[in-house]
Amino acid sequence: MPNFSASFTPEKTRLGWIGTGVMGTSMCRRLMDAGYSMTVFNRTRSKTDSLASAGAKVVDSPAEVASASDLVLMMVGYPQDVSEVVLGSEGVLSADDLPQVLVDLTTSRPQLAVEISAAAEKQGVHSLDAPVSGGDIGAREGRLSIMVGGDVEVFNALDPIWKVLGQTVVHQGAAGAGQHTKMVNQTLIASGMIGVCEALLYAQKAGLDIPTVLQSVSSGAAGSWSLSNLAPRMVAHDFDPGFYVEHFLKDMGIALEEAARMDLCLPGLALANQLYRAVQAQGHGRDGTQALLLALANLNGVNW
Amino acid sequence: MPNFSASFTPEKTRLGWIGTGVMGTSMCRRLMDAGYSMTVFNRTRSKTDSLASAGAKVVDSPAEVASASDLVLMMVGYPQDVSEVVLGSEGVLSADDLPQVLVDLTTSRPQLAVEISAAAEKQGVHSLDAPVSGGDIGAREGRLSIMVGGDVEVFNALDPIWKVLGQTVVHQGAAGAGQHTKMVNQTLIASGMIGVCEALLYAQKAGLDIPTVLQSVSSGAAGSWSLSNLAPRMVAHDFDPGFYVEHFLKDMGIALEEAARMDLCLPGLALANQLYRAVQAQGHGRDGTQALLLALANLNGVNW
Repeated sequence: MPNFSASFTPEKTRLGWIGTGVMGTSMCRRLMDAGYSMTVFNRTRSKTDSLASAGAKVVDSPAEVASASDLVLMMVGYPQDVSEVVLGSEGVLSADDLPQVLVDLTTSRPQLAVEISAAAEKQGVHSLDAPVSGGDIGAREGRLSIMVGGDVEVFNALDPIWKVLGQTVVHQGAAGAGQHTKMVNQTLIASGMIGVCEALLYAQKAGLDIPTVLQSVSSGAAGSWSLSNLAPRMVAHDFDPGFYVEHFLKDMGIALEEAARMDLCLPGLALANQLYRAVQAQGHGRDGTQALLLALANLNGVNW
Repeated sequence: MPNFSASFTPEKTRLGWIGTGVMGTSMCRRLMDAGYSMTVFNRTRSKTDSLASAGAKVVDSPAEVASASDLVLMMVGYPQDVSEVVLGSEGVLSADDLPQVLVDLTTSRPQLAVEISAAAEKQGVHSLDAPVSGGDIGAREGRLSIMVGGDVEVFNALDPIWKVLGQTVVHQGAAGAGQHTKMVNQTLIASGMIGVCEALLYAQKAGLDIPTVLQSVSSGAAGSWSLSNLAPRMVAHDFDPGFYVEHFLKDMGIALEEAARMDLCLPGLALANQLYRAVQAQGHGRDGTQALLLALANLNGVNW
């Protein structure tokens, strides 16, 4: 049971932020623009420069962020980074003065979220796992979907924060439930992307005009976000990252690991994981997920 | 080059219809309601009763429909049915008095559409392949997507017909292009359905509340028509057919056959075809395509 009743408004809350990549910087900046004071840490310090210019205090460790903050939000890369930032020797939970709440926005392992929740709770810190979907544009515009696991009262108390960052912010259950929901999201995308790429390759081979085909298939039973948003980029030969192939591989790896732990056979997800492995092997790890088309074209010996 | 300039308005056109299943009956009825006179044939004659009551003349063969009509539309089951109805001894092209145009709305083999087009052209009949998407509701409400292959002038002349039947009616190219476009549509659906079913099974195993999960994942990058429309039916244990498993298997079989002919490897479509084979093997051939969930649940030894 949380030991606070206050909500985290800008007037009453010192925020901390760990991890200032593309997504993290946009989200952190939105909170600062909403009036929150901010203490920031990033492994590569130069990536905090723009936030420092906007008034954030930059410190040298996650523990220093924690000591200076009532609420710490973090968005880092891989589960091992999450583990180090929270549980490491200079991690959030090693701070002299602990924050009330820790929110991990990284897409990470559900089981790690459960471990962190238990470790935090022992020290009187409430933790939430809160991975997001919506990409860099969603982060900049505050239109993310945020999937939250942890204590519902803590979730509710953070309403002022969610309003700044997200459009669809849903409490999904106990610790780990946010991460599990993100895995559901990625499982949907994985097989869907195979369908989009195979459909375009079929259309090309059959000699159809792809933009004309998209007119017929985009708005009916075959329609999807991936088809509407990524197929036009494939047609335009635009493989710039909205979402990196290497990050999608991380997510699918976590989902498959969890599925194995739960004794769950997911052949479509396994196939997608293998095909994206080929995308990376062909040198497209830092391209966008739509680069799956290139790997499938290559598999078929055709030029796109 | 078509030998007519007139468009096919109700005042000037005697219509014929072959194949009065659920979709065919709805579409035929819409044309009658729009003022067209109608001659009808179906292999099982009793399925023409409702149309007869509404004023259609029922005859005993495709050839008799052809002799009585300026424009014949057909929607039957399998490619072999299409072949028999058009090219058979009592088929449309065996009629004493031939129609100007033949439109095949069945989802069928692209190569058969090319063969039929050539055979029809030799007898001075213009043929179009025009498979549809949108299900029984789309057929009733005239909101189908219709994907058309064949001569574009013939396509344009049929505008009054398309307006009654469809919402998104697009000329996709020469004979066979309509069928190819439908295969693109089904390829998109095939892998997408795997994603939806695997995502729901993951959510169940992880102990999530599925309707709450759908709130988080339906409107973002994981969103699709299948997720929005079929996942709620799966949650409600509603496996009634919007689109039959056995018909989807027919379509995927055609798509894979065409892909093989074009030397195209489509691993996602092949996986979907195999999994739907299991759906049928488990007795769900006459359920809706959302029954894939039951087969994947069964594969995993879990109850849904």
